[in-house]
Amino acid sequence: MINIGVIGCGYWGPNLIRNFVFNEKTDVVSVCDLRKERLDFIKRVYPFVDITDKSEEVTSDNRIDAIAISTPPSTHYGLAKSALENGKHVLIEKPMTVSSEEGEELIEIAEKNNKILMVDHTYVFTTAVRKIKEIYDSGEIGDVLYYDSVRINLGLFQQDINVIWDLAPHDLSIMNYILQKDYKKVSAIGVSHANPEIENIAYMTVHFDENLIAHFHLNWLAPVKIRLTLIGGSKKMIVYDDMEPTDKVKVYDKGIEIRNIPEEVYNILISYRTGDIYIPKIENIEALKIETDHFAHCVETGEKPVTDGEFGLTVVKILEAAQRSIKNGGRIEEIK
Amino acid sequence: MINIGVIGCGYWGPNLIRNFVFNEKTDVVSVCDLRKERLDFIKRVYPFVDITDKSEEVTSDNRIDAIAISTPPSTHYGLAKSALENGKHVLIEKPMTVSSEEGEELIEIAEKNNKILMVDHTYVFTTAVRKIKEIYDSGEIGDVLYYDSVRINLGLFQQDINVIWDLAPHDLSIMNYILQKDYKKVSAIGVSHANPEIENIAYMTVHFDENLIAHFHLNWLAPVKIRLTLIGGSKKMIVYDDMEPTDKVKVYDKGIEIRNIPEEVYNILISYRTGDIYIPKIENIEALKIETDHFAHCVETGEKPVTDGEFGLTVVKILEAAQRSIKNGGRIEEIK
Amino acid sequence: MINIGVIGCGYWGPNLIRNFVFNEKTDVVSVCDLRKERLDFIKRVYPFVDITDKSEEVTSDNRIDAIAISTPPSTHYGLAKSALENGKHVLIEKPMTVSSEEGEELIEIAEKNNKILMVDHTYVFTTAVRKIKEIYDSGEIGDVLYYDSVRINLGLFQQDINVIWDLAPHDLSIMNYILQKDYKKVSAIGVSHANPEIENIAYMTVHFDENLIAHFHLNWLAPVKIRLTLIGGSKKMIVYDDMEPTDKVKVYDKGIEIRNIPEEVYNILISYRTGDIYIPKIENIEALKIETDHFAHCVETGEKPVTDGEFGLTVVKILEAAQRSIKNGGRIEEIK
Amino acid sequence: MINIGVIGCGYWGPNLIRNFVFNEKTDVVSVCDLRKERLDFIKRVYPFVDITDKSEEVTSDNRIDAIAISTPPSTHYGLAKSALENGKHVLIEKPMTVSSEEGEELIEIAEKNNKILMVDHTYVFTTAVRKIKEIYDSGEIGDVLYYDSVRINLGLFQQDINVIWDLAPHDLSIMNYILQKDYKKVSAIGVSHANPEIENIAYMTVHFDENLIAHFHLNWLAPVKIRLTLIGGSKKMIVYDDMEPTDKVKVYDKGIEIRNIPEEVYNILISYRTGDIYIPKIENIEALKIETDHFAHCVETGEKPVTDGEFGLTVVKILEAAQRSIKNGGRIEEIK
Repeated sequence: MINIGVIGCGYWGPNLIRNFVFNEKTDVVSVCDLRKERLDFIKRVYPFVDITDKSEEVTSDNRIDAIAISTPPSTHYGLAKSALENGKHVLIEKPMTVSSEEGEELIEIAEKNNKILMVDHTYVFTTAVRKIKEIYDSGEIGDVLYYDSVRINLGLFQQDINVIWDLAPHDLSIMNYILQKDYKKVSAIGVSHANPEIENIAYMTVHFDENLIAHFHLNWLAPVKIRLTLIGGSKKMIVYDDMEPTDKVKVYDKGIEIRNIPEEVYNILISYRTGDIYIPKIENIEALKIETDHFAHCVETGEKPVTDGEFGLTVVKILEAAQRSIKNGGRIEEIK
Repeated sequence: MINIGVIGCGYWGPNLIRNFVFNEKTDVVSVCDLRKERLDFIKRVYPFVDITDKSEEVTSDNRIDAIAISTPPSTHYGLAKSALENGKHVLIEKPMTVSSEEGEELIEIAEKNNKILMVDHTYVFTTAVRKIKEIYDSGEIGDVLYYDSVRINLGLFQQDINVIWDLAPHDLSIMNYILQKDYKKVSAIGVSHANPEIENIAYMTVHFDENLIAHFHLNWLAPVKIRLTLIGGSKKMIVYDDMEPTDKVKVYDKGIEIRNIPEEVYNILISYRTGDIYIPKIENIEALKIETDHFAHCVETGEKPVTDGEFGLTVVKILEAAQRSIKNGGRIEEIK
Repeated sequence: MINIGVIGCGYWGPNLIRNFVFNEKTDVVSVCDLRKERLDFIKRVYPFVDITDKSEEVTSDNRIDAIAISTPPSTHYGLAKSALENGKHVLIEKPMTVSSEEGEELIEIAEKNNKILMVDHTYVFTTAVRKIKEIYDSGEIGDVLYYDSVRINLGLFQQDINVIWDLAPHDLSIMNYILQKDYKKVSAIGVSHANPEIENIAYMTVHFDENLIAHFHLNWLAPVKIRLTLIGGSKKMIVYDDMEPTDKVKVYDKGIEIRNIPEEVYNILISYRTGDIYIPKIENIEALKIETDHFAHCVETGEKPVTDGEFGLTVVKILEAAQRSIKNGGRIEEIK
Repeated sequence: MINIGVIGCGYWGPNLIRNFVFNEKTDVVSVCDLRKERLDFIKRVYPFVDITDKSEEVTSDNRIDAIAISTPPSTHYGLAKSALENGKHVLIEKPMTVSSEEGEELIEIAEKNNKILMVDHTYVFTTAVRKIKEIYDSGEIGDVLYYDSVRINLGLFQQDINVIWDLAPHDLSIMNYILQKDYKKVSAIGVSHANPEIENIAYMTVHFDENLIAHFHLNWLAPVKIRLTLIGGSKKMIVYDDMEPTDKVKVYDKGIEIRNIPEEVYNILISYRTGDIYIPKIENIEALKIETDHFAHCVETGEKPVTDGEFGLTVVKILEAAQRSIKNGGRIEEIK
């Protein structure tokens, strides 16, 4: 049995606790939060769990094997470092850290201590995204031509991070997991309507090679909730609508066929193809159940998590570059 | 009765002809196209119309008062110039011209000859867009905070103009008509999958003052057809979904209220508001009927058309700047 | 070339005329309507067509091979009889006649005169319905378990026929074409809100053998337009949503599997199955084009039309029985 | 504090327990189920609750003030009777009983013992249904002309009750709560595909006066999940789509106006009206929270519950009559 400590009981923490309680490989031993009312709530629902408002009591607890951190991003580094140095495995809420330096250091510490460092990019563990990955990996859609994502709604205006740091980790983790492709550059544009330092609407572009781009619309101020991703392939195209209750993924046998006529440089024959659409069945399993299973499995076996430190770091590096681009008026920035 | 000549009988020309035939203020006298089969088709349906493959026969026809031009964009300038210089009023298909120089010259010639020069930005004459303008002008939605538009589908890959020149004139004309606001800068990113000179996916941003932007997603290679515009206002928000058969415009009493606490610069109170939604009734009248009525009215009275040469030129200037931005890797470009 | 006369130029007649004009096997020679303005309209659009307000001039016209009748239902019998007796082939608007006696007589006259008698059940010629038939015939959905249809909107209150006679011919023709199954009984319930003799809302049930029924909701007074058919099969199920612009037909690999345990009569094992959904590509061809082609083909070859007199008569017999059932408070009535 | 005992911990019981635990006026003292694993589950989540597999231990428990019964329908009568006779208030899962005799007896016992008897018709406590009631009561939609409800999906085939007894209590409770109108007759048609005694598809009609009917489509074997209610009014119409995540209720300013011309009996002028649609904001509060609050309030004050025994009995009487109608081939049956 893996004993878990959970630090941070805001919106997401209770979901982690519930999943670790119900998982047969894990037990929740201790929960930490600064707010008494959150701890009281947890104690009422899970009376067998210890509660504390001191994170050190969790990170240094000898009974504990692994710590889940679901606190504000700026605290991730300090808490994760302390946990790893105390010999605990760590699962950190996304974004992993607020800078790539912090992220790199955590990866090093985890390696040195031979501990699992996993980032809680929950979408990677949804059955919808896993189905898309399966389809993509099968070669069915061909080469990816573009990736377009919209994630907007009337959302909570965060006070410490902007809309890109808040929402884009979801989409970047989904894209990275599916495509597994290299990119070097990012550009972004953002607008602030409340706190001038905190953009609440942003458009971000990840530049791959010459004719592949990924574009992201992120918005806390939209009247409608849209979570729509298009993946255009050379053979087929995928539409992933996360607002659909069941039919989230549609595969369109639709596209163009391009034939270059060699002797005439710009004489191109384009033919259009539209065929059937299919909607694969997607199992209805809570992503966090799959994710906590995976974390437990990695802790047990030492296997590398799908969303390990490197995975989380890549996301942070894109966010950093996007942030620089916004400050530079949308200039294309290298991802370091 | 206003006698009309129509030059260009491809996809759009027959719609113009039908509307001018059925309009009680106008008669179609002569139709020109280079393709015999298009002329034969027109002759069969409207046997009372003269047909010709020589545009000069139309532009110099003494019976004709006004000429509608629905040919490829690169020919607009020459045909419109000839028509205006022959003392005809002119209605040109969008985009008005392929360069702002051409557009400016046409405006001058029209003024010198005291003729109406109108650009066929049909969307401005849809009942949905007119309803949105009415709502916007009433002040009901407050200050506009952002404008976001998506116009994508599996569309015809044009051989002479890219996706921005093809699709953005619709959205720019809608936005300019509704907002009537100044802007100075544009940036754009595009990707080509067929002809390397002709982008088939593009993202364009029009920069207004510091915290207002308009963003456009234009795509010929999308599996689904989306024509969705969000207009975020400080009081209410509008969602315009042109794919809805009837309920195209929705007004959301939804938003945030921001209160700055003066003594503490970054201490901002944000409260969220969600109320009723309403869907105004929109008359079901063909836009081209309203537009041809308006053109006839302007020809009769000498009144300035809503989509006059200046209106069309503004669109062309944005397209030019967007084109420059794409070539410069997304750099922000001044609209000249 | 088959010379066509058209009697009746209201809502539907012009669509027939247009299709017969553009069809290369047919010519429209003469058009009849009682209203001068309708004839003027036709003459303007098709100046080569003769017009008349006397139907005898059409039915006795020696140049004419076939007559299309799109007048109110109560006049179908007289006009069709006159046409057939004058040696013309006939295409009649649905419902074929207002009584089965009239229908039976027309079938006899057509046979005696060796002429084609076809009923204009247009839905049978839509590409969506033909695709459903193809899927059904392939055996893919298994045995049909139920058929459920909703056809409602804020529709024109007819003054001479009720909502069942107005709308159900569509659904009955679709069902009969697809299922090709016998049934003997009908029941129906209706309500009138305007003319007490003319029901504007009705629910109709066609009773097949013991465990198959087809149910129809027909309504002129609905706020939303719904045209939705469910066909539940023992293996798969079909959803046909005619309001969808393109993806009208969806095939669900979903259902139950029933295993009877022989020794225990009511001990039944039911297991649920949900799999992929697919949306077959449907060609975008106007149904009336396919239908007029089919009519021309039958006239040329003497082949029996898919929607021949017998087909149309079956629909009329169900409508009659439904009418009797409404008058008898929903009692199950034999289809004679 | 009101001490609650809960009998029955299947699908719904845990929701009742959770709401009574979190409600500040109620405490859950004891929970009963026959299945050990259900009791273990409850004990793990709520360790402070007593568990038992003997219902008598709950109904006779002196600490307990009120008992919630969420067991199969056939057991409701016996458990509720025992609880009431032991001086407990009772909340029974819908349908209240499996016969009206049982229901009537429970009402008598409750009155004699001066105890609250409430039926758990949860939909009546949804914010959507309460909003519709508010709109209806305001007179805004005018006189109700028809009521049409569809509640279908691939649902669990119950082994002891048919689809009407399973699903219609929802719709009948909604309709009765909103309309508060008298009716006397019911007819129904049903089909069985598994157990021949248990219909899995049914159509039910409630007959009000001469020109108002309510119709219900109930189906366990539908590929799509639909929960759609239309309420046609003489002034406006309501569409209630319970599958919409937020915009569940739409009010259409749409309808017909009928003017009878007195001297001519059947000469009726019908004009059509279509105006704006509005979507009222609906609070997002769990129905069961509102319901358990209401139950606690009634227990405290002795006030009659909205869904009291009489309310529940009316639903049972309709179900009984519908059942008789199915057995009699759809004959109209009096509601006794």
